Amino acid sequence: MKQNADELLALIFNYITKIAAIHDPEKLVVEVAKMGRDIVKADRCSVWILDHENNILWTKVAHGVDFIRIPSNSGIVGEVIAKAEAKIINDVYADPHFNRSVDDETGYKTETMMVLPIHNSAGEVVGAMQVINKIGEGGFTQEDLQHLLLASTYVAESIESSLLLEEIDATQRELVYIMGVTGESRSKETGNHVKRVAEYSRLLAQLYGLSEKECNVLKDASPMHDLGKIAIPDAVLNKPGRFDEDERRIMDTHAELGYTILKGSERTLLKAAAIVAYQHHEKYNGTGYPNQLKGEDIHIYGRITAIADVFDALGSDRVYKKAWNDEKIFNLFREEQGEHFDPKLIDLFFENIEQFLSIRETFKDRYDG
Amino acid sequence: MKQNADELLALIFNYITKIAAIHDPEKLVVEVAKMGRDIVKADRCSVWILDHENNILWTKVAHGVDFIRIPSNSGIVGEVIAKAEAKIINDVYADPHFNRSVDDETGYKTETMMVLPIHNSAGEVVGAMQVINKIGEGGFTQEDLQHLLLASTYVAESIESSLLLEEIDATQRELVYIMGVTGESRSKETGNHVKRVAEYSRLLAQLYGLSEKECNVLKDASPMHDLGKIAIPDAVLNKPGRFDEDERRIMDTHAELGYTILKGSERTLLKAAAIVAYQHHEKYNGTGYPNQLKGEDIHIYGRITAIADVFDALGSDRVYKKAWNDEKIFNLFREEQGEHFDPKLIDLFFENIEQFLSIRETFKDRYDG
Repeated sequence: MKQNADELLALIFNYITKIAAIHDPEKLVVEVAKMGRDIVKADRCSVWILDHENNILWTKVAHGVDFIRIPSNSGIVGEVIAKAEAKIINDVYADPHFNRSVDDETGYKTETMMVLPIHNSAGEVVGAMQVINKIGEGGFTQEDLQHLLLASTYVAESIESSLLLEEIDATQRELVYIMGVTGESRSKETGNHVKRVAEYSRLLAQLYGLSEKECNVLKDASPMHDLGKIAIPDAVLNKPGRFDEDERRIMDTHAELGYTILKGSERTLLKAAAIVAYQHHEKYNGTGYPNQLKGEDIHIYGRITAIADVFDALGSDRVYKKAWNDEKIFNLFREEQGEHFDPKLIDLFFENIEQFLSIRETFKDRYDG
Repeated sequence: MKQNADELLALIFNYITKIAAIHDPEKLVVEVAKMGRDIVKADRCSVWILDHENNILWTKVAHGVDFIRIPSNSGIVGEVIAKAEAKIINDVYADPHFNRSVDDETGYKTETMMVLPIHNSAGEVVGAMQVINKIGEGGFTQEDLQHLLLASTYVAESIESSLLLEEIDATQRELVYIMGVTGESRSKETGNHVKRVAEYSRLLAQLYGLSEKECNVLKDASPMHDLGKIAIPDAVLNKPGRFDEDERRIMDTHAELGYTILKGSERTLLKAAAIVAYQHHEKYNGTGYPNQLKGEDIHIYGRITAIADVFDALGSDRVYKKAWNDEKIFNLFREEQGEHFDPKLIDLFFENIEQFLSIRETFKDRYDG
């Protein structure tokens, strides 16, 4: 029976809409496999991605086994990729390339199969689609193959786009982290300080009820809070003892300096980082610096980072002081509720203290190298 | 006449394949408009994107007027977006919302029109598709509308993805630039130094025949060449006079320090930046630092950045010296061909000297604030 054309069109648009919104390559592979299965009405579909560097094929399936890797030349899929030629096999057990050990192990019976190479728009084979067990009478047809071939280059482009986005996204996170560490490195703080401040900030943002997007932006922006320290002279930055008045004034310029470095940007992340750098030393009662902002005139990002930064600084050993114990930290936080810190955020902090301690434990400083 | 279903399917897959490979939102809008036009067989199609922040609709069209912005409530498109309801108008001049002034100006005669809102998967209206002048007998049909409605959520997701990618990509470029400037700022060099080094490096990479991808990676990586200076003490970094032997040794550690900051990453960009930081002071004849690498043992990224960095440094005023004139720079480059610098790159440099001078002119330092 010929599939209704409008139905097929609706099905395809439904899938490609979902696919366009997925940025994680592994989730994408699962969704594309479902699309392949439904386009040709098969029982199963796997999308295999060729990893040239490691000579493997990988796939994810929604159900059952999670993540599968096989040598890139194995079985019928390997053959299709090597020859760059599609194959319809409506009597699988008769095919010499078929490896029946998986069927024997799982009890699943493979009867019909169609495998086609996935080309990207440059014409390179980047993987394969494999559909198994056509539903209904007869096996896979040339029309099924035609439909999947139409889809296959689209699949390649989608997957390449998602891999690109993943790479850029991961690079951005690392750049932000390296910038944070770079800012801290001159003052001999550790890379884990910026990680913890990032995690505490996101948690406070979530508890405060900011949108998921804002929570993630703040997480990535908060490591840059001390970026301005880059421009503070060594003699001040690393002074072991107490600052005199001049030194204190110089040190305090780091908030405005960080803001100056970042303020020119129109990018969401860097605008947030500029706010965090500028306001993380403001105090709720208006006695902070550099602008003596008060209460909710301090941006929520600034109020949150202030708590995250102080909580972490007090709980860590520094060149000039030992870490405080929790009792002492908590007493200070209660005293400073409504003074240094936003009272609502301090309530949220104490109500969810276990989560903060768990972050501290996960990202604790290690001194073994 | 009913459109052939397989033909329509092939057309759609052809377009969505192209669309999946386009990451620039403006180019995407043009391609999506072509898809819309071909799906319903219209003479023209525009895809309008709603910019909430500025209350405008924007579009790009392939031919004729380039970039168009209109108030978000104007005309039939504005009406469709406000009501979130599609509209088929097969007698356009009878519609009270139609503004015929554009037709009067351009001489183009609008006869039939169909406009539908574009929803994203969260159900929000993010724009509209507008097709004009159905080809052949009769106007637009419910079937045309149905086909475009199927496509519209896909369009929304694609455009949102491309806007996201553009934001992340632009953020990455700015982060890299800020990191470069941060590294330079302590040694009082200018932001334009890192921009020029980036552009010279990309140009040399292109002339040398590296792939487009590598050229762009090197462009983004090269600004980080002096990142390690972040960890050099002020007393050395900003010394006005000549270094003594100890100071020189401390200063030279910046190459290895930069490498240490960056080397942990698996990301393409940061791996390239690590190479650049490590090797930009190696010399072709093996007398550079830190590892006295020789000839092609120095990575091409290192050999390129060495030339870009020195060319720019010699041509710029610094605290401790005036800029050299071009004759003096060119003489040094000829003397150092095969000594400090890769001889092949020096040939390419002189063969294309106009392009290098044009970059220098475009990104020259300005002292007017």
